[in-house]
Amino acid sequence: MEMQSKNYDVIVIGAGHAGCEAAFAASRLGSRVLLITINLDSIAYLACNPSIGGTAKGHLVCEIDALGGLMGIIADKTAIQIRMLNVAKGSAVFSLRAQSDKIKYHSTMKQTLENIENISILQAEVSEILTSNNAVNGIALTTGEKIVCKSVVIATGVYLDSKILIGSHVVNSGPSGFANSRHLTASLKRLGLEIRRFKTGTPPRVNSRTVAFEKTTPQPGDDSIQTFSFLTKKPIKNKVMCHLTYTNPETHKIISDNIHKSAMYSGNIVGTGARYCPSIEDKIVRFPDRDRHQVFLEPESLSTNEIYLQGISTSLPTDIQEKLVQSIQGLENAQIMRSAYAIEYDCINSLQLAPTLEYKNCQGLYFAGQINGTSGYEEAAAQGLVAGINAAGKKLILSRTNSYIGVLIDDLVTVGTDEPYRMFTSRAEHRLYLRQDNADARLTPIGRRIGLVDNKRWRTFQSKMKHLDSLRKSITKKQEQEIKQGTLTSLKGDINNTVLTEIKYAGYLAREQSKIAEAKRCEASALPSDFDYTQIKALRRESQIKLNQIKPQNISQAARISGVTPADINVLLVYFKKNPKN
Amino acid sequence: MEMQSKNYDVIVIGAGHAGCEAAFAASRLGSRVLLITINLDSIAYLACNPSIGGTAKGHLVCEIDALGGLMGIIADKTAIQIRMLNVAKGSAVFSLRAQSDKIKYHSTMKQTLENIENISILQAEVSEILTSNNAVNGIALTTGEKIVCKSVVIATGVYLDSKILIGSHVVNSGPSGFANSRHLTASLKRLGLEIRRFKTGTPPRVNSRTVAFEKTTPQPGDDSIQTFSFLTKKPIKNKVMCHLTYTNPETHKIISDNIHKSAMYSGNIVGTGARYCPSIEDKIVRFPDRDRHQVFLEPESLSTNEIYLQGISTSLPTDIQEKLVQSIQGLENAQIMRSAYAIEYDCINSLQLAPTLEYKNCQGLYFAGQINGTSGYEEAAAQGLVAGINAAGKKLILSRTNSYIGVLIDDLVTVGTDEPYRMFTSRAEHRLYLRQDNADARLTPIGRRIGLVDNKRWRTFQSKMKHLDSLRKSITKKQEQEIKQGTLTSLKGDINNTVLTEIKYAGYLAREQSKIAEAKRCEASALPSDFDYTQIKALRRESQIKLNQIKPQNISQAARISGVTPADINVLLVYFKKNPKN
Repeated sequence: MEMQSKNYDVIVIGAGHAGCEAAFAASRLGSRVLLITINLDSIAYLACNPSIGGTAKGHLVCEIDALGGLMGIIADKTAIQIRMLNVAKGSAVFSLRAQSDKIKYHSTMKQTLENIENISILQAEVSEILTSNNAVNGIALTTGEKIVCKSVVIATGVYLDSKILIGSHVVNSGPSGFANSRHLTASLKRLGLEIRRFKTGTPPRVNSRTVAFEKTTPQPGDDSIQTFSFLTKKPIKNKVMCHLTYTNPETHKIISDNIHKSAMYSGNIVGTGARYCPSIEDKIVRFPDRDRHQVFLEPESLSTNEIYLQGISTSLPTDIQEKLVQSIQGLENAQIMRSAYAIEYDCINSLQLAPTLEYKNCQGLYFAGQINGTSGYEEAAAQGLVAGINAAGKKLILSRTNSYIGVLIDDLVTVGTDEPYRMFTSRAEHRLYLRQDNADARLTPIGRRIGLVDNKRWRTFQSKMKHLDSLRKSITKKQEQEIKQGTLTSLKGDINNTVLTEIKYAGYLAREQSKIAEAKRCEASALPSDFDYTQIKALRRESQIKLNQIKPQNISQAARISGVTPADINVLLVYFKKNPKN
Repeated sequence: MEMQSKNYDVIVIGAGHAGCEAAFAASRLGSRVLLITINLDSIAYLACNPSIGGTAKGHLVCEIDALGGLMGIIADKTAIQIRMLNVAKGSAVFSLRAQSDKIKYHSTMKQTLENIENISILQAEVSEILTSNNAVNGIALTTGEKIVCKSVVIATGVYLDSKILIGSHVVNSGPSGFANSRHLTASLKRLGLEIRRFKTGTPPRVNSRTVAFEKTTPQPGDDSIQTFSFLTKKPIKNKVMCHLTYTNPETHKIISDNIHKSAMYSGNIVGTGARYCPSIEDKIVRFPDRDRHQVFLEPESLSTNEIYLQGISTSLPTDIQEKLVQSIQGLENAQIMRSAYAIEYDCINSLQLAPTLEYKNCQGLYFAGQINGTSGYEEAAAQGLVAGINAAGKKLILSRTNSYIGVLIDDLVTVGTDEPYRMFTSRAEHRLYLRQDNADARLTPIGRRIGLVDNKRWRTFQSKMKHLDSLRKSITKKQEQEIKQGTLTSLKGDINNTVLTEIKYAGYLAREQSKIAEAKRCEASALPSDFDYTQIKALRRESQIKLNQIKPQNISQAARISGVTPADINVLLVYFKKNPKN
């Protein structure tokens, strides 16, 4: 047998959360995959925070899992504490969040991928995407080597021409002492991609040995431990305690007095940051009346003392960072091991992508993760999964009516984003239906149809659905009454939540379903992908331009494009009724 | 209590094998230590090969341990296979070698240091050494921050202005995708240090899933498992199998045909490589008659499939690397995960250092590890230990008569090295005495005197010495006879080797002891450290220069300086007899 290792179906560039998921999905679908990373030691690296899930992000992880992806399984295997967030807010927005062992998350993901027959993993830097007739046909490495392939998924995260900023200090580097990628941006520009500059940041890490935990509030994990994956059988054990403390007026004074030294406020940063992951200096400036902000102390791994200080991301100089940290209760003697920093990086304009995450001007070139302007591991992994599936030749477009992943990608390719995009439950108009607990009911059949869901997962799913059905049938009128009145709050088994929610919110869910049906009808009015909207003279000029830019898949997507008015939608409906051939 | 975290006794720059040992030793001696590394994830990183020990290197590890250092303890804890080398060659050169779990070695060392009260660990890049009146008083970080200290140990390994070379590809980077250090060299030059350019290299790593192990020869670990540390009680379990295969004429043809493409042979590399760690292309060029070379397949960790291909370090282009690897039996379908590369880096001229590893022109500035021109983790750790001890203010100069560490440092500061220096048993003139098994007898009392050996180690040592003594006394004349004749080869207990060797080589050892006594007498003739040798007109000019450069500690060291003749030594002896005040 001759080796053909230099000829792949799919090449995935970047082995972060998007890249790992993309490589896994494509390999499962039979593609021969090459996964390239600048550093094998940063595969699935939790560079920003040592946790997976959280509000709306937990939904994404459950959906990835329901489709047959990896993140939920690895997160369950490497969780060291787990909590269900928003339990007071109603089951629609229940969100699972795990503290992950950062070192184990990396090594477990790495070894899982290493063991997959169809995946080759290579440490290298990609310098160019090779194309011919607007279609991908390979990549070039900085070593000069060229590798042939049918499609490419670019999942470079924050590594493209990235800069680390701390106070007035700027260094050309990837996150946390890893080398960055310095050639690929130029290649993307040559392919017509619009490059933007976004920024994100991370707080300091301190040595647990120097923290006075007794002065903080313990944040234990949940007693009854849920999991992300519908496959995980073994309960997750809480192995660590998190802690809560607060900033105080002294902290705020230190920040205010030095705000001009922050990379963010001194004009050093040109990239656009995430509104919803503000730095501590942002919080002080934007909420001057608040006399304290939460600071969660989160262990990074069982194998290190490093503690992540969630809540005080900053780009202040290191000496100010130290004062800031040591002004906080419990951290008076805390020693910083890694300084906080802001990181600026190149990303693309996601409006240039189709809902498959393929670049509209180059066949076979897919983008996933932070390069598309999102923030968050879960958002990245979700896109990686979809890009990987499509890159492997199985067309998958998820809808806003069946998943948060559908909402995420539709937002990216229809509305676009001018700042790092983060998922929220409020972004999903059908969130009462799009719950974590029914992610499998919503998506596992889709995953099965595509070929991502193997027999084991399919059998588990079917038996759970059967069990749910008989549970639904066994509910008495009296129980139903009690559930609605809130006097009955638990059924037996781990699937009670689904049935409880269905009964409790039966009215709302029925209305949701009719809205979903309506939305699906709009989605069914497909629009041509190669139509020139300037032909429709009745459309306003702005609409013509936007519609030509986005090339919406259907009337529903067209209606969500910023600048396309309801009147324009009517014009479209009339035109395509008259000219159905287009 | 006011925090004084920005005022340290000792700052150690670099947290590789030298830096970790230096930080640990200095902290044990009561110094407040700041350990700075560019990347916390590369602390004690086994960048080159996943093993500790081996010929002469095993001796260094045992000596580090005997003095109270860390390497032996961590190596024992994280070993996944262990073998005693040279068992056929006699007990003087018995050398222990462990396959280390690369991921665990790193995390175990990191967490061990994190838990030490006197050590602060910081991820940062040092840009400058701050001095005043030829004495260190602090360092500056690239972030602009300055940190005050009394002494500095520079242990930057291969990270100073390093370049990775693969074929014609050159990239400014640290090893294996880690960022490098780009400012410190200039600061060292300003301090008068002579900067040189050395190079080293590493072979490819392949995925174990793609190796046909059945076509190779298994290399099991030892049944009776020795340890590096005199403290380790739990026996080490062999957890992996290594394998042996060979290059062949086809491999050699691939290399010969492409030798002009090697970074090494195309003139791309200016750095000087290690004669004793040749690349595979070096071996092919230097030994054209050999029709095969050994290739050992060594697992890098239990948590990864990466297999290290010991024996085929190369700087050939990646496509040739793949052909080369796949021409080898068992590796026909092997997939490379990390390409081999050569790395060029800045190092100093070790002749500028005193035997304490202090820079002669700047008080409090110490150097340890690869920056001194050595190769190897063990050589680095040994220097780190000595530099750390001296930086902490406890003067320690080891001698060629008591340790391989003494030989190593004396070679560096007296003879110097024009290529990466590696330890060999042949470098130690008293190697029959300088054995692994008696490293504690030779050095633990010295470690105790300095303060590095804690009570636990001291009690363990004393009880072992007591046991040895009674064992010696219990030997009958008959047993002694049988040992000398080779018919009795084992005594009870784990210390039999010491007593067996003492009896078997009694004659040789007695002669060795008299040579050692003679050498010690020469060492006792101390020479002044600030003497100007041009005053001694009877000395040849070359000797004057060399003696002024090296400033030998004693007549013994002076005699080993290249260019200083026996006649010059006589001149010195006469002069200092006449002028004892100097």
